[in-house]
Amino acid sequence: MADYVYGPGRTHLFVPGPVNIPDPVIRAMSRNNEDYRSPAIPALTKTLLEDVKQIFKTTTGTPFMFPTTGTGAWESALTNTLSPGDRIVSFSLGQFSLLWIDQQQRLGFTVDVVESDWGYGADLAALETKLRTDSSHTIKAICIVHNETATGVTNDLHAVRKLLDAYRHPALLLVDGVSSICALDFRMDEWGVDVALTGSQKALSLPTGLGIVCASPKALEASKTAKSVRVFFDWKDYLKFYKMGTYWPYTPSIQLLYGLRAGLDLIFEEGLENVIKRHARLGAATRLAVEAWGLKNCTQKEENFSDTVTAVVVPAYIDSAEIVKHAWKRYNLSLGLGLNKVAGKVFRIGHLGNLNELQLLGCLSGVEMVLKDIGYPVKLGSGVAAAAAYLSNSTPLIPSRI
Amino acid sequence: MADYVYGPGRTHLFVPGPVNIPDPVIRAMSRNNEDYRSPAIPALTKTLLEDVKQIFKTTTGTPFMFPTTGTGAWESALTNTLSPGDRIVSFSLGQFSLLWIDQQQRLGFTVDVVESDWGYGADLAALETKLRTDSSHTIKAICIVHNETATGVTNDLHAVRKLLDAYRHPALLLVDGVSSICALDFRMDEWGVDVALTGSQKALSLPTGLGIVCASPKALEASKTAKSVRVFFDWKDYLKFYKMGTYWPYTPSIQLLYGLRAGLDLIFEEGLENVIKRHARLGAATRLAVEAWGLKNCTQKEENFSDTVTAVVVPAYIDSAEIVKHAWKRYNLSLGLGLNKVAGKVFRIGHLGNLNELQLLGCLSGVEMVLKDIGYPVKLGSGVAAAAAYLSNSTPLIPSRI
Amino acid sequence: MADYVYGPGRTHLFVPGPVNIPDPVIRAMSRNNEDYRSPAIPALTKTLLEDVKQIFKTTTGTPFMFPTTGTGAWESALTNTLSPGDRIVSFSLGQFSLLWIDQQQRLGFTVDVVESDWGYGADLAALETKLRTDSSHTIKAICIVHNETATGVTNDLHAVRKLLDAYRHPALLLVDGVSSICALDFRMDEWGVDVALTGSQKALSLPTGLGIVCASPKALEASKTAKSVRVFFDWKDYLKFYKMGTYWPYTPSIQLLYGLRAGLDLIFEEGLENVIKRHARLGAATRLAVEAWGLKNCTQKEENFSDTVTAVVVPAYIDSAEIVKHAWKRYNLSLGLGLNKVAGKVFRIGHLGNLNELQLLGCLSGVEMVLKDIGYPVKLGSGVAAAAAYLSNSTPLIPSRI
Amino acid sequence: MADYVYGPGRTHLFVPGPVNIPDPVIRAMSRNNEDYRSPAIPALTKTLLEDVKQIFKTTTGTPFMFPTTGTGAWESALTNTLSPGDRIVSFSLGQFSLLWIDQQQRLGFTVDVVESDWGYGADLAALETKLRTDSSHTIKAICIVHNETATGVTNDLHAVRKLLDAYRHPALLLVDGVSSICALDFRMDEWGVDVALTGSQKALSLPTGLGIVCASPKALEASKTAKSVRVFFDWKDYLKFYKMGTYWPYTPSIQLLYGLRAGLDLIFEEGLENVIKRHARLGAATRLAVEAWGLKNCTQKEENFSDTVTAVVVPAYIDSAEIVKHAWKRYNLSLGLGLNKVAGKVFRIGHLGNLNELQLLGCLSGVEMVLKDIGYPVKLGSGVAAAAAYLSNSTPLIPSRI
Repeated sequence: MADYVYGPGRTHLFVPGPVNIPDPVIRAMSRNNEDYRSPAIPALTKTLLEDVKQIFKTTTGTPFMFPTTGTGAWESALTNTLSPGDRIVSFSLGQFSLLWIDQQQRLGFTVDVVESDWGYGADLAALETKLRTDSSHTIKAICIVHNETATGVTNDLHAVRKLLDAYRHPALLLVDGVSSICALDFRMDEWGVDVALTGSQKALSLPTGLGIVCASPKALEASKTAKSVRVFFDWKDYLKFYKMGTYWPYTPSIQLLYGLRAGLDLIFEEGLENVIKRHARLGAATRLAVEAWGLKNCTQKEENFSDTVTAVVVPAYIDSAEIVKHAWKRYNLSLGLGLNKVAGKVFRIGHLGNLNELQLLGCLSGVEMVLKDIGYPVKLGSGVAAAAAYLSNSTPLIPSRI
Repeated sequence: MADYVYGPGRTHLFVPGPVNIPDPVIRAMSRNNEDYRSPAIPALTKTLLEDVKQIFKTTTGTPFMFPTTGTGAWESALTNTLSPGDRIVSFSLGQFSLLWIDQQQRLGFTVDVVESDWGYGADLAALETKLRTDSSHTIKAICIVHNETATGVTNDLHAVRKLLDAYRHPALLLVDGVSSICALDFRMDEWGVDVALTGSQKALSLPTGLGIVCASPKALEASKTAKSVRVFFDWKDYLKFYKMGTYWPYTPSIQLLYGLRAGLDLIFEEGLENVIKRHARLGAATRLAVEAWGLKNCTQKEENFSDTVTAVVVPAYIDSAEIVKHAWKRYNLSLGLGLNKVAGKVFRIGHLGNLNELQLLGCLSGVEMVLKDIGYPVKLGSGVAAAAAYLSNSTPLIPSRI
Repeated sequence: MADYVYGPGRTHLFVPGPVNIPDPVIRAMSRNNEDYRSPAIPALTKTLLEDVKQIFKTTTGTPFMFPTTGTGAWESALTNTLSPGDRIVSFSLGQFSLLWIDQQQRLGFTVDVVESDWGYGADLAALETKLRTDSSHTIKAICIVHNETATGVTNDLHAVRKLLDAYRHPALLLVDGVSSICALDFRMDEWGVDVALTGSQKALSLPTGLGIVCASPKALEASKTAKSVRVFFDWKDYLKFYKMGTYWPYTPSIQLLYGLRAGLDLIFEEGLENVIKRHARLGAATRLAVEAWGLKNCTQKEENFSDTVTAVVVPAYIDSAEIVKHAWKRYNLSLGLGLNKVAGKVFRIGHLGNLNELQLLGCLSGVEMVLKDIGYPVKLGSGVAAAAAYLSNSTPLIPSRI
Repeated sequence: MADYVYGPGRTHLFVPGPVNIPDPVIRAMSRNNEDYRSPAIPALTKTLLEDVKQIFKTTTGTPFMFPTTGTGAWESALTNTLSPGDRIVSFSLGQFSLLWIDQQQRLGFTVDVVESDWGYGADLAALETKLRTDSSHTIKAICIVHNETATGVTNDLHAVRKLLDAYRHPALLLVDGVSSICALDFRMDEWGVDVALTGSQKALSLPTGLGIVCASPKALEASKTAKSVRVFFDWKDYLKFYKMGTYWPYTPSIQLLYGLRAGLDLIFEEGLENVIKRHARLGAATRLAVEAWGLKNCTQKEENFSDTVTAVVVPAYIDSAEIVKHAWKRYNLSLGLGLNKVAGKVFRIGHLGNLNELQLLGCLSGVEMVLKDIGYPVKLGSGVAAAAAYLSNSTPLIPSRI
């Protein structure tokens, strides 16, 4: 069966998730089901649980691989560590932080929302004030999105940890790393993150279907007394099966397990630090292109620039949704829509996952043509030139080919 | 990458889930991710939501395709229709009904458990008593597993409906159809089922990852006032996106959507009624083999015989787990373990999903060899002969090849 | 198993064959073997033989799909129509015409070679002289490569036909369409081509393995008396099995048959004329980039510009092999080497097969970076800008997405 | 796209080629094209050429992997070692030896045909007579099919070698190992075979497309003076590219190279001797089933019994073609037709390639049902029982699972 709306050549997928799956992973997943109770699947799972810790940079954390999405992973992080009514400080700075806050509220927590204008990072000064005045430790958790996918804003998690430490505050630090982990610099242990989570369809470059949640010893301890109602997302069931060595309280996706194995193998072959550097390279190149086009980055401060997604602000006379539509209809290019408050105002270029320089330059040349077609006076080639000037100096040789 | 524990030839997968995936479905799923916000995915989703109703035999139901497993689908069925403390009548008759009851209790419902000995069907006389005495309608829902996978027991749903009608009882009828829907006779509308659910890795013959929940208008109505806390599994979010025509509140698995499309196409090409007849044929053949071997079916009454899984009782001097282990180690055959109360006492032959006569006969010949190897005095060929005698008379020609 | 020399992201394949295979074709080929004597394979083959004629633009031709490469297809074209010692006029203008001439000589024909400098088209004036002076019709065949892949030269087949007609010369016209058919304008019937051939790994965008040879009625007639020794490549055996309706004198590749079916379906969905226009578009864009870089096209005359491959001449101080090596090592970009007389002097950009605008622009941006890295004073973005200016004006909307 | 004539469940492929492809091989081949001139493909090819020698059991031979079928491999073996008019002794004992003889004659050799009745092995007594009387060494080659696929007859190659040695006859020994190599005991070096050949779709369990020809030093020497016309199949071109380290005179199938790599890896993981033992086991089991059914093996002498294919003779009142047709139409089972002299009289069970015990037993149970359906008074289960009795005693544990 062909794709539903076939266009010649390869679809250029540059939404910030789901992202491009490397061919070896697609191959590894192209397989029949297996009995998950045979010795093979536990043996495979064991290697995955061990190796997945590396992408969280944790040795003390306990990972859980839920058959779910990032939204489910959020729910698992919250319900396993908190009780109804618990006070949470949560940062609102874009569509995904908003959605998480909505979930926090619907799950019955008392959410103390710290607002930022869209395009700005989390307001840590406000957090500091709250921490300073919370000597009775009513704040049970800080919830923060490491990388807000809607605005291309990366928050400084280390700074959050330093504040918590400065005030010796015992609140749990819960981090949405959906569009950061395995692409941006993320250090669970070093930064004292209590629960970190991601989804398989982001930087891991797999299909949607695994919500990976990693819990610190402190978070595991909290889960013993947390009163939120949970069954499907309950860590306790997993822990029980971990101990038994069978690992799965219910049926996992055999294909995603083999896919994760293949995906991790590729990441380790490239080297996690090299993966992160590649994202930094592609992020920098993209921003140089945006600048060359005379457009603004939705992200307001350089310190928050995201290396996984760039939200580009278009002039008021252009509807950014038209850009996205036109890119797909004419150039087989998938860009990210502007969401909610920035709908119509920004379009997004996702540059995360298993992606290389020439793929990005193809995308940027496509964006240039779309901008021209849609009536923006872009100089064709300008963004590509700026990006290429940077990339040709910074792209290393492929190690296996030297 | 080879399979984790490679053996020559094809693995014979006869656990009652996850089941064999047809090659055209594996092919359809072997693909890159796509932007789920492009027009293609909603268009595809729309056909799936429409067509999936057919396997539930409903025209009035509303299906939800959650990125989850059967356990998640259970949770969605319960939390969307009930409020904490609500009284449920639930039947305990095997491992999977037990697990569902455990979930019901942990979600905070008042569960009125009706026990049956393992191997027996749901105790409908007990239900009748409860309904008769519940003139104040304290019972909010009846929860029943259509086909208990642990014991190979199929329950009579139509009889449940008739009891509810006889007593004009408004309780919702919630049905776990995980190992029945799309394989056994199941009629959502005709039998007045309020919520029916299944998982993709069972009779639909896909990988694990879709928990499909179908709600009657009455269940949808109930969801408006149900107070159980839910976010990820909330029908409300889906309904909102259905109205907007984008269909997905969070990222679906692109691969599973294409896989479901291909899987439904195969089911419709064969004809759902023919699929059900094929399961009846394979179920009957399996039971004849068991009888020929001189072994007992765990299912005690003919009316409860399951056409998707047969639980075979072994003599006391044999550990059924050894049978399963040996089958896998020597003959590349995956059989189902006995679970919980029947651990060591039964092994299970799953005969559901995309499977044909010769595959089953290969499995049965394998079981015979295992029984012999393990010390049971089976007459080699006896079960195969009994099954083949039945099958050769009842197997129709393949329509596309006539 | 990962690729042998893994690099992150997608490999950018721009050699003039083997070319990129569309994902739906890869999927269609991902399958087990089948009995080629069952009714299914002949039924499938029948549709292929009928439909493949369309890409040759013939209604009177008879196609043969040999399990071989282009080299084998050459051999089949020659040995089925000619006898040892027969005089052939053959044009030498690049590596592939040279190799064909070598084959012609080794097969025992008397080859009258018409030389052109590399970069020039076939010398039709010389042909005219030969035809004029051959009143006794000693010339039995004219052999010409439609598109010389080594130099990016497309020859004017229609002009050859007009010369043959002008002199009422009965010589057979044998055409290598390996890098032209299904990408360039090719008209077997209208141009009176007697044997045309191509390979599956070129514009058809399949794996290597099918050498497709199409014979005119006149060629079929000639095959009855041709005395060249042949068995594997003999049309007679195929014709016998065509009549029997089983089609295959020996085992075909089941996978390639399904792949060809899927590939033809995509070509017909796009429309053959649109496929040809797409190649014209990508060819023109590439040449504009080369010009913008200040480099020369190896092809000397505009009338011979090839829309499937562009051979780019590098300055004397650069070794073109270094460009190819560097592109692969640093940017995961596969370019074509300069072959034989132009080794070290040209590199080649293949722009044929299932390819779109943004893929090409990604490649062009890669070439720019390589040129810069290697020491050529290219203005980054210049070629991409020139190509994009042309493409943004000429690329149509994708019909299925309007 | 579904299979052309879809039937539920797995197709049971038991023709003696093309055979079942293991899933890891299908996965390895599910890939895009690559530049075959990049360093990756020569590096891969080098490992293949080295490793493929193992399946021929040769250390001194030189393998050639032609993009062709077994018929092409035949042609390559003959034309590279012989000159037109050369005298060959060739054994006629079934359809495939007949076809090879036909090719030998059409290629212009003087073929001295030694006939056997179909079902009997090569007449070595006749060979001995010829060798004894050929003191002038007019016989240039002995051509013999190791395993005649049409009748299930395996010839004694070692005996042929001993005769040649006894008479110190310098004739080349050319062996068709298409349905033997990698499945039966075959020893190129030890038995002094000069050219051995096979096809990828047979015991190697790949798609059709590689004709692998292995030449002894003596054969290579002969190729220097052999005058048969050849280009595509010429070893000389390969040897030239072997020396250059690029390996390919024309484009290979990238997919088949990766497939062969994966296939060899599986064979070596199992162990070639274990692969051969597995074939012996399945062959013996099949013959026991045939005997239990009261049917005759087409092979007349036990010493010629083939472990890769069994040709079963049906009673005169049954048309064996009906058995094959019915098996496919009703049970999704592909059996081999009787060919030429035994058309209508035998059907064939192919039991070669990547196949295991339960697959075979499924097939045998299917044959039983077909026999019954078609009117032969078979006792259902009888063949399966006989085969299983043998197999349960002889099947070893799977090493990776112990």
